[in-house]
Amino acid sequence: MTIVMYERVGFEGRRPSPFSWRIRYALTHKGVDVEYRPVRFADVDTIKRLSDQHLVPIIVDGSTVVHDSWQIATYLEDRLANQPPLFGDEVARRTTRFVNQWSDNVLILALRRLIFPDFIWCLAPEDHEYFRSSREKALGQSLEEASADRPRLQARFDAACLPLERLFAEQPFIAGSEPRYSDYLVFSVFQWARLGSPRDVVAPGTALAEWRSRMIRLFDGLADKFPGYPKERMG
Amino acid sequence: MTIVMYERVGFEGRRPSPFSWRIRYALTHKGVDVEYRPVRFADVDTIKRLSDQHLVPIIVDGSTVVHDSWQIATYLEDRLANQPPLFGDEVARRTTRFVNQWSDNVLILALRRLIFPDFIWCLAPEDHEYFRSSREKALGQSLEEASADRPRLQARFDAACLPLERLFAEQPFIAGSEPRYSDYLVFSVFQWARLGSPRDVVAPGTALAEWRSRMIRLFDGLADKFPGYPKERMG
Repeated sequence: MTIVMYERVGFEGRRPSPFSWRIRYALTHKGVDVEYRPVRFADVDTIKRLSDQHLVPIIVDGSTVVHDSWQIATYLEDRLANQPPLFGDEVARRTTRFVNQWSDNVLILALRRLIFPDFIWCLAPEDHEYFRSSREKALGQSLEEASADRPRLQARFDAACLPLERLFAEQPFIAGSEPRYSDYLVFSVFQWARLGSPRDVVAPGTALAEWRSRMIRLFDGLADKFPGYPKERMG
Repeated sequence: MTIVMYERVGFEGRRPSPFSWRIRYALTHKGVDVEYRPVRFADVDTIKRLSDQHLVPIIVDGSTVVHDSWQIATYLEDRLANQPPLFGDEVARRTTRFVNQWSDNVLILALRRLIFPDFIWCLAPEDHEYFRSSREKALGQSLEEASADRPRLQARFDAACLPLERLFAEQPFIAGSEPRYSDYLVFSVFQWARLGSPRDVVAPGTALAEWRSRMIRLFDGLADKFPGYPKERMG
């Protein structure tokens, strides 16, 4: 079988979406053949036609179309039950859903203001206006205003990361001795920051930084297979 | 077998410690005989003599003394492996550890300023000075100063609770269809607020409030077996 994944593509082949990254890791973990099809950031029509909604990634498996990263992950787990598990037992799966809600309702919100003004340069020029107008509407202010007080935003992000720092002082991965979907989904947020900003949001030498390094090395360095932050935009 | 648990006791038999509550639920879940021995809030000597450290609860199982609520929970799980599970598989256990780190490094920190000036009245009069001086040292300001901006503190707490609100819109318990240790440990923080303040920190009608109601009803209403907030201190 081959699964098709539609994912957003940015400036010169960049892959800036955290939701696509977590599914890319899940698919790689499952060891399945995948055909990746890039869609432009502002090209919601392709996605709407396929899935009747506007969010990426989506996967297409024969006649089945699945959207929403959590739905995709649980679909893959059940569909590919004989491949390496993305969760564990049912309690592990439901508890991972808490990690997912924490990631997307706390971690991403604490991070987006830190990276948005830089992040726009990872997108194709023709997508800048779409990104700026949709995000500024969500924030209720300009990207630059939202990111103005950087020390306070970094402190807020560090506080949000404290459970991870404490956890990685005790165990190598969120799931324990080996990475699972919980690790992929949280890592995808840090990957978003890594590729989307020239400044590191993680302090060196922390347990969190060490976990991130372990995640970057997975699957033959999958995290670095696409272009990083545009050099011409670095300090 | 009978396990002995030492726990802090407050004003007229109150049980104000979230760490004791989570272990009380874990022990009840395991269906084991327990002898509860109360120790006064400021009475660190009894605990130090038994466990060579000052934190409660501790449990004593024959010649084994265990302290730290996480260590106690995992000890109980392994020692009572044939009783109902507190976790699930190893991935569930390690992912529950993330929930624990989130609870104790985010949720408790966001809540303590909201409840501390009220909470002191749950303690025996002779423990007030110990509580005030130790907590004001930790906060770097008086209890009243730390709690002055209540609307901001409540908004911060609500934001911290958002992953729970989203989760409980989808599933009845953190662990899924039935409560496990993840539910007990997070509930213990809300129980701390319930018993320690005359004001509710959870908005009625939310998914979070409904989960809390389910937790309160568990084990024949265990959550209400001890006195609530002192009536003479209610506005």
